[in-house]
Amino acid sequence: MDMAVKERIRVGGRSARIQAAVHDAVRELSAEIDRAELTVPLIAARAGVTPSTIYRRWGDLSELLGDVAVERLRPVAEPLDTGSTAGDLEAWVVQYMEEMSSAVGRAMLRDVLINISEGNACQCANFTYEQLQMIADRAAHRGEVPFDVDDLVDRVIGPIMYHVLFGHGELTPDYCRMLLARVPELKGGADVQSARGEAS
Amino acid sequence: MDMAVKERIRVGGRSARIQAAVHDAVRELSAEIDRAELTVPLIAARAGVTPSTIYRRWGDLSELLGDVAVERLRPVAEPLDTGSTAGDLEAWVVQYMEEMSSAVGRAMLRDVLINISEGNACQCANFTYEQLQMIADRAAHRGEVPFDVDDLVDRVIGPIMYHVLFGHGELTPDYCRMLLARVPELKGGADVQSARGEAS
Repeated sequence: MDMAVKERIRVGGRSARIQAAVHDAVRELSAEIDRAELTVPLIAARAGVTPSTIYRRWGDLSELLGDVAVERLRPVAEPLDTGSTAGDLEAWVVQYMEEMSSAVGRAMLRDVLINISEGNACQCANFTYEQLQMIADRAAHRGEVPFDVDDLVDRVIGPIMYHVLFGHGELTPDYCRMLLARVPELKGGADVQSARGEAS
Repeated sequence: MDMAVKERIRVGGRSARIQAAVHDAVRELSAEIDRAELTVPLIAARAGVTPSTIYRRWGDLSELLGDVAVERLRPVAEPLDTGSTAGDLEAWVVQYMEEMSSAVGRAMLRDVLINISEGNACQCANFTYEQLQMIADRAAHRGEVPFDVDDLVDRVIGPIMYHVLFGHGELTPDYCRMLLARVPELKGGADVQSARGEAS
């Protein structure tokens, strides 16, 4: 049975309560003990379910941890509205950098990247694209030149994530601002055409 | 005992042979069976050592896999000399993209990223910086304007790795060339000063 079918069958009361209890157990135990000591029986005991409930629903520990990490990386709010696109992007990108480079953020990233084929990582990138698209839509709504989300990921998000994962270079708000200064649309209308031209 | 001390004690004959046998066993078994089925006893049997030899030397399976992955990601040669910096970088970056986005490359990346605190990922980034620095030094030697390695990582390597790991966007040689076209020093001497200016 594929994941989509499982999800459709298991909506509602009991299933949702089990998911919440297991996710809570993972979050609590992660704060208390070392990741290497985390086991399915331990999580099951804390959540008040049997280990086989967990194996049946998530397959194994790494899939459960990936699932919990995706939920924790899911944005809880719309990007802050600062009144300008430059302000919105700076606020969002600096917060993104700080969350991803924190100890908790790095642990979440590790959990979503372990099962590279499972689509967890792709889901996290979707969150990023959605949030950036909201900021771009807001720019258009204000009458500002909307930036291209793919281009912003290449110029700003990619290098930040590289440094988070591979540990090279210092991640600071100034570094984020330096990357954002390369986004053509943030330089003002007149330059956009020529700055875009550099990419062709 | 820290890793550096262990390394100093264990140089030479028998230790080097054990390392080679265990690394070979991991590579062979990885080609034959699913990663999820790979266990320390299986690797030990293939390598002709006891499981406790592996646990003593590497700690656990994920550390062993990370160690093997770093060795496989270590460059085997200097970057190809095509006669120009633009040519050297295009050849190197397209090959990097193809290797990292292959099934084997993605599996290696997963293995080095699992133990994020272990320095494996940092070691892999060192390989990248060293190879790029060789190309930059060669540029200076030819009398071309040498590019800045950190800047090239931000503009080209970061976005490629983001798409490899998070699975968004198509990775093609054209995409690599589009990113390389943003490197100020590859645009010709006259533009370098103004193009660099965009970053400040």
